[in-house]
Parts: sequence; structure tokens; C-alpha cells
Amino acid sequence: MSTRESLAAEREQAVTDEVLASFDNAEPRLREVMQSLVRHLHAFARETRLSEREWEAGIAFLTRAGRLTDDRRQEFILLSDVLGLSMLTVAINQPAEPGATEATVFGPFFHDEAPEIALGGDIARGAAGMPCYVSGQVRGTGGEPIAGARIDVWEADEDGFYDVQYDDHRSAGRAWLRTGPDGEYRFWSVLPAPYPIPHDGPVGDLLKAAGRGPMRPAHLHFMVTAPGYRRLITHIFLAGDPHLRDDAVFGVKDSLIVDATTHAGGLAPDGTEPAAPWASIAFDLVLAPAPARP
Amino acid sequence: MSTRESLAAEREQAVTDEVLASFDNAEPRLREVMQSLVRHLHAFARETRLSEREWEAGIAFLTRAGRLTDDRRQEFILLSDVLGLSMLTVAINQPAEPGATEATVFGPFFHDEAPEIALGGDIARGAAGMPCYVSGQVRGTGGEPIAGARIDVWEADEDGFYDVQYDDHRSAGRAWLRTGPDGEYRFWSVLPAPYPIPHDGPVGDLLKAAGRGPMRPAHLHFMVTAPGYRRLITHIFLAGDPHLRDDAVFGVKDSLIVDATTHAGGLAPDGTEPAAPWASIAFDLVLAPAPARP
Repeated sequence: MSTRESLAAEREQAVTDEVLASFDNAEPRLREVMQSLVRHLHAFARETRLSEREWEAGIAFLTRAGRLTDDRRQEFILLSDVLGLSMLTVAINQPAEPGATEATVFGPFFHDEAPEIALGGDIARGAAGMPCYVSGQVRGTGGEPIAGARIDVWEADEDGFYDVQYDDHRSAGRAWLRTGPDGEYRFWSVLPAPYPIPHDGPVGDLLKAAGRGPMRPAHLHFMVTAPGYRRLITHIFLAGDPHLRDDAVFGVKDSLIVDATTHAGGLAPDGTEPAAPWASIAFDLVLAPAPARP
Repeated sequence: MSTRESLAAEREQAVTDEVLASFDNAEPRLREVMQSLVRHLHAFARETRLSEREWEAGIAFLTRAGRLTDDRRQEFILLSDVLGLSMLTVAINQPAEPGATEATVFGPFFHDEAPEIALGGDIARGAAGMPCYVSGQVRGTGGEPIAGARIDVWEADEDGFYDVQYDDHRSAGRAWLRTGPDGEYRFWSVLPAPYPIPHDGPVGDLLKAAGRGPMRPAHLHFMVTAPGYRRLITHIFLAGDPHLRDDAVFGVKDSLIVDATTHAGGLAPDGTEPAAPWASIAFDLVLAPAPARP
């Protein structure tokens, strides 16, 4: 290295060292998080030799994201999603448990005012789409059925929109139910459709610039809770969906892809005769044991 | 590692690999920047075992910063400043040149509609504070004087506010001038005061939580441009300032600390008799040669 280069490297390191030291007196967890953030943020800038114009573009990106974000639109969560940070945070906090159903991203469309339905009821509640019968069993990794588990389900309609994305305050495509004595569950829904994440903002521009698409494959959201078990937040995806390999938010796991069987007519497993055609999906949900309390 | 741990590590790595691959088709520079960003962002989350609650706190922080940011307030630049990213970007883009004056952060208070003043004129233009005579020479690293160099100067007043922070659209504490035949410059200003960066938002909360202060030591901003030389953006700081060692934005360099001499009265070097007391500062500005064009 020339004198000039070593002087430059030394001055860059001095900046990082000074910033790291400024967090020395923070309480231990804040200190750990902020010092790791600073180390990686600075290493990113140094590795890429970030230009002043690129730094300005980053500031402008965040500023635009901030201007767009409100109660109905969350551009910062979208950013975390398309950078895979959301999915990685899921992986870190809901770690793999051999035999248990895999977790995936929670997404921004859950809300906790969905109604309870009876076992076998209809979560669609007016959402448009092909009727879809979903059934299976909730059990533990030891094979034991879990009676009385709470299952929250939410989904987009056949046009790819959640109820909260409409302006008319509708509630549809979401409900919760409890498993029966043998851990069994069943409900009616509609076959969900692929949809684009909101992409008319800076996150959409980033995807476009990177040659990436905004689509998510069709999916049905589940959140399953039962005493003694780890809460499971996941989706099921439909086999054959054209976006299984380019989910904009990296949520797809092979183990979560299920077959939806389409029926031209006839009786459903619950003895009803749904409007033809209708679909059915069978999927068991296996919960990991709750983590031991420290 | 147990089966469970190695399965977890594998799944975390798979998320990162998938996100990195999603930028494979971006044009080379975007790919380089985004893949480095993803690698470091993910390494940060993995190293710290970022909790879902902490992820949510991060989203809430950015959301609040976005809500606060407008034409007069830039919380994202403040965030970059207090994390040292702004200063590091300066260090990367205005690399050290032996013998040249060191650069420091540009800050958010420059604007390009300041008036020209004659050599020896007054940049204070009504800003409150002790009159301060600033003089020196602009030269190259080879010692050659640079005639006709443009010097932009801007500063806070004795209350720690820049003109643009007042609501009355005043223009004060800023101007530009050209060096004389021997590279000499001189102007009147006011002695600047230490001031806090805006700290009533999330960045202020972060500083407080980390046990850091919001203060910047008193300084005078310079931007110096001349054909054939690298543009210099820097400050001078005042020796003895109580905040030289805890500048909230990490802008202080020892070589930029100058003595301000206070005078009880008498004639100034330009033969005028300023209101007593008055101060004087001598500081030479040494420009690096312009980078060779590729």
C-alpha cells in the first residue's frame, strides 16, 4: 500500500472505531445491537466504496418510503421483505424443529378482529373465489393430536386482494376456529390467487431496477397456538403456482407446497354440495414444543 | 452442533443465498451494492440473533423518522450522521492526501443561494455574535498559492442556529468570496457556538438511550473549489470547545481545530475598529490535486 492508501485506510478505520466507542456506555443489549449494526453498515460502505451520489440515493429512497408509509401502507416492512430480512428474522426466531411444520413470514395483512367460526365453517365470508375445503390435523412432533388448538386463517381473494385493501371496511377471507377432540380441523375458504406486493413506491422501483418481479405465489396464512407448543406462523402454497420460484418476499418452503384438488361437482367431505367447481386441500400442522423457560 | 442447530443454520443460510441470487441479474454496480447490503444486513441479524420485537422496533423507528422528515427536517440524514455513515462516506470519497486539509461532513445547512462578498467583506450579514476576523491562504499541496479560488462559508450564530432554522426566511451567516492574487482570503463573520442536532425525534431517542449527547462543537463550514484541484468540504473547530470529543456526528479532526484569539478592542488587521470584544482566526486551506480522469 502507498502512503496515501494506508493513510486513507487508517482514517476510515478511525471513523468506525470512534462510532463503535460512542455506544460503549449503552446497556448491554443495545450496545451489542448498535455496535454490530455500525460494524456491518460501515463494512458495507467501505467494501462497495459507496459514492456520495449513492449515499444521497439511499437517503432519498428512505425519505420516499417514509412519505408513503401510513396506517394502510408500510413501505419499510416491504423493504425488509424484499431484502429477505423478514424471512431471516422468522428463521432466527422460529428455528427449525425436526418434524415440525416450517414457519414463514407473517406479512402485513393479519388483524386480530377476525370472527370465530365453528369447526367446518366458512372463513371466506363473502370473499370472491372458487370454494376451497381445507382440512387436516394439528399435532405435536411426538405425533400426539392437539385438541382445542386455535387456528387463525387469512387469505387474499381471487383478485389477489385482502379485505383490508378494499376501501369499504369489509371483513372477509379471515376467521379463527378451534381443533376438535382428535386435533382435526376443517373449514371452507376460497382458492387464493397470486398477487403483486404494492410496487408503485421505491421498493417497487428497486425490484424493477434489479430485474425482479413483485409477485407472491397464492397462499393461505395460518397462525396456530396451543398451550405447551411454540406458536406457528406459516402459509400453505399451491403446487403449480407460477411464482413459487420467485416469491418477492422469499416466503416459500418446499414443505409448505400442497396440492389443491379441483372437483367438477359432487358432494364435499362434509356432505354439502358446494357450487361447482370447488377445490380441496389436505394439510397437517405439526407444532414444535414450547421452548423451555430460562 | 446438534441436528437441530445445524438444520437451523442451514435454513438461515438458505434464506441469505436465495436473496443474494435474486440480485444476480441486476446491472453490475447495483448488483454489487445490493448483494453487499444483503450480506451485511443478514450477518447483522444473525450475529445479534435479532428478535421479532427488535425487528418491530426497527420498523417503528424508520416509520417515525419518515413521518418527521420534510423540506426542513431530515431525520434519515441525522441517522446516517449519528451512526458515522456520513463521515465514513466523506472519508471514502474525499480520501486523505498528505499535506492537504482534511475533509469533514457537509451537513444539511448549506444552500447555494448565498451572496458573493468582496475579499475582506462580512459573511455574518446580521447574524448575532462576537465579530470574528478569519484569514489565511488557499494553496496546493506543492505550496503554490491558488488565486481566484471560490470559498463558500456558512455558520450558525451565537445561539447555535443557522439562518434556515429561523422562520423568517432571513439569509445570514453565509456568503462566498474569491481568493486574491496570492491565494489570500479574509472575511468577517461571527464566532460560532456549539449546538445540538435536532433531537426531539427517534434519532434523539436513540442518542439518549445510548447515553450519547446531541451536541456539535462550534464550527465554521468551508467549501473551496478551484480548477485543477479537488473540491474541499470541511469545517474549522475552535480549540477549547467542550464538545470536541463528543461531536454527535463524528466530524472533528485534530488538524481542523484552530485557536480563536479574543481581542479586548483596538484595530483589526484590515484597519477597521470592530465592536469590542472581537476574535480572529488564521487558517490556511490546502487543496489536493484533482483526481486524474479515467
